[in-house]
Amino acid sequence: MRIVGIDPGYATTGYAILNIKSSKNYELIDCGVVKTKAETYFPERLEQIYKEILNIFSKYKPNIVSIESLYFQNNQKTAIAVAQARGVIILAAQISKVSIVEYTPLQVKFAVTGCGKSKKMEIMKCTRTILKLDFLPKPDDAADAIAIAICHADRKM
Amino acid sequence: MRIVGIDPGYATTGYAILNIKSSKNYELIDCGVVKTKAETYFPERLEQIYKEILNIFSKYKPNIVSIESLYFQNNQKTAIAVAQARGVIILAAQISKVSIVEYTPLQVKFAVTGCGKSKKMEIMKCTRTILKLDFLPKPDDAADAIAIAICHADRKM
Repeated sequence: MRIVGIDPGYATTGYAILNIKSSKNYELIDCGVVKTKAETYFPERLEQIYKEILNIFSKYKPNIVSIESLYFQNNQKTAIAVAQARGVIILAAQISKVSIVEYTPLQVKFAVTGCGKSKKMEIMKCTRTILKLDFLPKPDDAADAIAIAICHADRKM
Repeated sequence: MRIVGIDPGYATTGYAILNIKSSKNYELIDCGVVKTKAETYFPERLEQIYKEILNIFSKYKPNIVSIESLYFQNNQKTAIAVAQARGVIILAAQISKVSIVEYTPLQVKFAVTGCGKSKKMEIMKCTRTILKLDFLPKPDDAADAIAIAICHADRKM
């Protein structure tokens, strides 16, 4: 089974492609970020995210997309912009005929570190251990996307 | 100039197509709602909204889209779902190469009724008067979309 994990954002969207070989035996195929510029017209940023995510689905042909659910932040404007970006990511999955599952940040942290209150660096280190990587997955958003993919993988195997 | 006004939602999205003939002389070409069913898988609802809005832009070829900005409601889950629907509507405009302008609910109410605290029925009656209609525009979401289009029209003429 192949999972794409996605950490949605309008400035940076993290993604990670994971193959599940057997129980607790996962292979990281690729990970990275879709970045859009602050000075770009917002609808153009949404179009860029939509098209790049469509390309990722088309290239890696996942069986499922695992995406982080949103919680309300202090900055309402940011939360609305992130939700709008998340809308076009969900649309890209739907147009690509891939099912979506969602997990809360708490579920994701717990799956990877065994603790719901883990910090970024802990998540990075734990994903490295779980995937037996000889490097620390970076940047943050890509590491988060790996964790989101692992969260679903753990529940399926 | 042709404006499409949009009142975004995931269950009901209102739309209205307005021709500006001259100052304060507007013609309502069409209005209606895109409705999605509560029992439908959420990504499918987003796809339906995206495709129906694309069709409206393709059919009516507007010069500009006027959309209501979001404010945070009491129900966070609803606000996130509406923002996600708004994301795919903005994407539809961008893919159709139509510019988007946004107005707050306060600006829209003020433009149509002269008061920022107007109720739904007042908005309906005022849009009927402004557009010289012999019927009350319905449902609510379509009437709101007309008001959103008028709000932009008033600023342009």
